[in-house]
Formats: sequence, C-alpha cells, structure tokens
Amino acid sequence: MGDSSGSNGHGTVTRVLFCGPYWPASTNYTKEYLQSYPFIQVDEVGLEQVPDVIHNYHLCVVKNRRIDSDIIAKATQMKIIMQYGVGLEGVDVNAATEHKIKVARIPGSTTGNAVSCAEMAIYLTLGVLRKQKEMDTAVNRKDLGIPVGDTLFGKTILILGFGAIGVEVAKRLRPFGVRVLATKRNWSTDMLPSDVDELVDKKGVPDDMYEFAEEADIVITCLALTNETVGVVDHKFLSSMKKGSYVVNIARGRLLDYKAVFDHLNSGHLAGLGIDVAWMEPFDPDDPILKFPNVIITPHVAGVTEYSYRTMAKSVGETALQLHSGKAFTEIEFVN
Amino acid sequence: MGDSSGSNGHGTVTRVLFCGPYWPASTNYTKEYLQSYPFIQVDEVGLEQVPDVIHNYHLCVVKNRRIDSDIIAKATQMKIIMQYGVGLEGVDVNAATEHKIKVARIPGSTTGNAVSCAEMAIYLTLGVLRKQKEMDTAVNRKDLGIPVGDTLFGKTILILGFGAIGVEVAKRLRPFGVRVLATKRNWSTDMLPSDVDELVDKKGVPDDMYEFAEEADIVITCLALTNETVGVVDHKFLSSMKKGSYVVNIARGRLLDYKAVFDHLNSGHLAGLGIDVAWMEPFDPDDPILKFPNVIITPHVAGVTEYSYRTMAKSVGETALQLHSGKAFTEIEFVN
Repeated sequence: MGDSSGSNGHGTVTRVLFCGPYWPASTNYTKEYLQSYPFIQVDEVGLEQVPDVIHNYHLCVVKNRRIDSDIIAKATQMKIIMQYGVGLEGVDVNAATEHKIKVARIPGSTTGNAVSCAEMAIYLTLGVLRKQKEMDTAVNRKDLGIPVGDTLFGKTILILGFGAIGVEVAKRLRPFGVRVLATKRNWSTDMLPSDVDELVDKKGVPDDMYEFAEEADIVITCLALTNETVGVVDHKFLSSMKKGSYVVNIARGRLLDYKAVFDHLNSGHLAGLGIDVAWMEPFDPDDPILKFPNVIITPHVAGVTEYSYRTMAKSVGETALQLHSGKAFTEIEFVN
Repeated sequence: MGDSSGSNGHGTVTRVLFCGPYWPASTNYTKEYLQSYPFIQVDEVGLEQVPDVIHNYHLCVVKNRRIDSDIIAKATQMKIIMQYGVGLEGVDVNAATEHKIKVARIPGSTTGNAVSCAEMAIYLTLGVLRKQKEMDTAVNRKDLGIPVGDTLFGKTILILGFGAIGVEVAKRLRPFGVRVLATKRNWSTDMLPSDVDELVDKKGVPDDMYEFAEEADIVITCLALTNETVGVVDHKFLSSMKKGSYVVNIARGRLLDYKAVFDHLNSGHLAGLGIDVAWMEPFDPDDPILKFPNVIITPHVAGVTEYSYRTMAKSVGETALQLHSGKAFTEIEFVN
C-alpha cells in the first residue's frame, strides 16, 4: 500500500482514464497492477463518451482515441496524456502544450513492445511467404503438399524505419540467411546497437527508399506515422519494388496508400501483403482488399503480449503513482 | 541435351515413377528439370495404381505411398526407391535390400529442405504463441487488440532431434532471446556445426527428454519416425511438460500420441499445438482435435518451398540421369 497523501493538487484520488473499448488487456492489467492503491482510480469508457467525462481525469491513456483540440479544451484537470505503447499520431500535441498538458509514450525498447512487434513482423512475413490462406484452403480440401511456399532464406529485406522495432526485426532476420537494407533519418544516434553494421548490409536515409525498393523481395514498415510518412508506401514506391515482392506492415495502417496497394495486388505486382494494422480500425472484415488470397491480417496485436502488456501496465501504474505523489517520472518519454 | 546411350540395362528409356497425387510440385518440377532429356520418362500415378504399374519403372519417388514387401516384389525393374526429401519410414528397406533395390533419401542439409522446415517451425511456433485462430476470430468480429499473445522472448525451447532441421531451428531461435535444450542420440557426429555450443544451452540424449520437458515452454519435434520414436510425445512426456506449454511438430505426425495430445489439450495442460504433419494424411479437417481454438495445422508443406523443391527436383533429375548413364550417384544418400 502506497502513501495516499496526494500532491497532484486534485484531492486524494488520482484518476486515470483509458479510452476503450479496444486492447482491453491494457486497462485490465493496469487495474491489476494498481489494485492495492485505492487512491488511484482507473476507469475505461467507450470512445464516444470520452469528451463527456475527460474533465474528471488527471491521466489519460488514449489507445486509438483521437485527442483533438476540442477534447483537450475539456480536459481541465489533465496532467498527462499518454499512449499504452509508442504511437501518438492521434494526439494534438500542440493543443496539449497550449493547455500545459504533457504528452508521453512508453519507450518500446525497454518494455518488450519492440520485441513483441518484431516477433509479429517475422510471423507475418513467414505467413505471406508460405501463403497462409492457401494453406488453410488446402487443409479444408484435404489437399497435401500444396501450396509451394517461399523461404525467407536468400531474400533481400528492406526495413523502413530503423528504430527500436526495426532493430529487433533485423536481429531476428539475420540467421535466416537474408540481406537487410534499412532506411532511417539519422544513423548517428546513440540509440542504435553497437553491432548495427552486422545487422544491416546497406543503410540509407528516407530518400533512398525507392532505390532500395528495387532490390527488395520483402518490405517491412516499422515507421512512426507522421505528416512525412503517411502514405509513404504509394504507387511510386510499390512500382519501384520487384514484381513478386511482399509488403508487411506492423506499424500504422496509413503508412500504406490503400489504392496503390490494392492496385499492385490486383495486377499481381505484389505477391502478398501481411498487415497487423489497417486504414480504419477495426477494419471491415469484408473489405475487398482482404479478398485477395495472398493478403493476411491480424487485429492490431503486434505489441499485445503477456510480456509487453504486463511491463507497460507497470509503466502506466508507476506513472500514476508518481503523478499522485509528485515524484519524478521514470517510465515515460515526454514529447512536449 | 544429354547422352541417350543408356546403360541401365533396360533399353533406351529410364522410367521414373512418382506416387501421387499429393505434393504435385515434386513431379512437376522434376519434369521441368528433365524436359530436355527425352530418354528419361517421368510419370505420376495415384497411390492405388502404384502396384499395377510399378513393374515398368526403374526409379520410384515414394512421397507418402507405403512401399511394402508385396509392392517391392512387383518392382521387377526397380533400381532405386527414393524420397523427395528425407522421410523413408513408409519403405520396407529390408524387403528392398532382398530384391537388390537401393533405398535413398535426399540429404536435407544441402537442398534447402532443412532450412524450409526450420522456417516453418518458427512460423508455427509464433502462430500458436499469438493464437492464430483467435486472431482470425477477432478480425471477423471487428475486435481490436485481442487476443493477448505470448512472446518467444524469454522462453525455453526443447528441440527433440538435433539433425539438419533441428540445427537450423536452433540457429533461427537464438536472436529471439530464448534458452535452447536439445536431445540427440549422438552428439559426437561431425555433422554438427562447429558453434553447436553457442546454439544449445543444454544437450541431452533421448532418455533426457522427460527431465528436459520439465523446463520447456515449447517443444519442437524434429525427429525421424522410427520404431523408437513413434508416439514418443505421449502421456508420460506431456505430463512432464509444464502446464501452459506448447508443442510444435514439423516432422512426422505419428511422433505424437494422438490421445495423449488430445487429453492434454482438453485439460488445458497444453496451451497450444501447431502441426504441419498429422496422424493420417490428408488429415480430416473435421477431426475433433482441430476444434480446439489453440490448435493450428498446415498441409504438410514445411519442406515445400520454391527453393527446396527446385533443388530437390535437380537431385531427382540428376539421379535419373546418373542411373541412365551408369555414373556415380552424387545427389542422394543410400540407407541400404
């Protein structure tokens, strides 16, 4: 049981709002982590109700709720808006700054989020190479020994975005016998592992992506979604890729231009698409792009593992406790 | 175009029989490889017709056809019975030896078969950890962020059988941050890579499997099917495993005792099962074991990739050409 003398300036209870209903384990695991601290109140409300209740809360975990300037104006007691993970593209950071609200993510390199996302990237890559849907069809038709899949072995992989997730993807790809190309804005950062030259055969900046695409059999997107990266996998980029190549996206759905991807699947230029994230979420299961036999989708769970979710619940829990007690924040990275 | 002067003692055409209809690419790719050699005739017939036609052939690729002593007695012109891969458990080798027929496999370490099977083992392992069926259900229900999966990171993996496939599996597991245990009859063989001690944290002989199972979160079976290994994953073994552990089988279906596996899934002791191979093949898609939400199956395609199938087509093709011309066999490994 912690010290209940709050210094948050809002009485004896610090209130944490989760914007639901998706990724339910984030709320549940955080409640479990904080269950012996009655002076921290954790609630979840549906996306639509958020504007009506946000004025009651000091800490908000946004999940996939857009937090625009209108909502921020209502968040009169809010101290911190944060993500259960790294993606803050839905938060109007400037508006938050104006209202003296801090905005934060949980760094993926320390929580298992990057590791979890990297494992999902490998899973989806193998899934498209092995033609997951065709395998299911074969089982149901009592076929054996079809389809003929493709190996990772011998392939050239382009990783777009070489942050915490990209690094973990490259580490896991190495022993598969592949060539790894990667693009990153700034390769001189000290966030990179010391053996980066052993992980990446060819390093480039974002503008090199079209040239690198010409060599790639598989492109894995590991970028944050920003004004610069939205729709970056477009007609120009996909046309630069080889015929018969694959795209895997475990980052954010809108990195991919839907129409460009659809057209390149339709023409057969793209041999397969594996996505954990989509253009709208939840994604319509009847969307035409999912009808291609070489498209597989998972329900935005790349980072959703026991390991990362327990660790991130601790990060949110500790942040709530630190906010309550006025101590320094040790678990989160502020962006404003 | 090769030399058509046959020294096989059976006229000018060497006849190759594929036992069909499954794994169709094996036949098709071999035909393509041999298309410029009219003196090699490649045919495929259904499993039931094999006994009626086998007397016409010099080389037989068995696939999943059982070749017992009755069939071998009919194979009056047969020189070589071989597998398109490594598994020869369906061939009565003693009867073949009596009839002076050689029996052979294509060593997996050189053809991409081991690499392909290892990639499939990683794919199925990630698939059971991430709960593939539950992910599909979530997509179809428009859920987001469920199920909570499990990471490979932090797990202990027991590899049963550390031949060519087991070695390739261990290599690929290393950067996932796991502990690897492995059992093997003979660790002093020169077939092992020089860095085996970096790949395996704990080495044992087959009798150690029960003790090792107590530590394992995931068991991956990479054993040949023999009288010693049939049903080796039985009640005793599964009960030795931790509650909440997983089994992945990319080798042969009958390594697993069906009832024992079923019972341990039913009790919840096993958290998941991923199989590329089954007890009967093709496996009944309505079999009760496939109704568990944590069981996934693929249609015996672990070794079926462009890479391995093109390479093995070359092995069969060269074997047919060498048989035809009386030259030494360079592609296959005889077992009698």
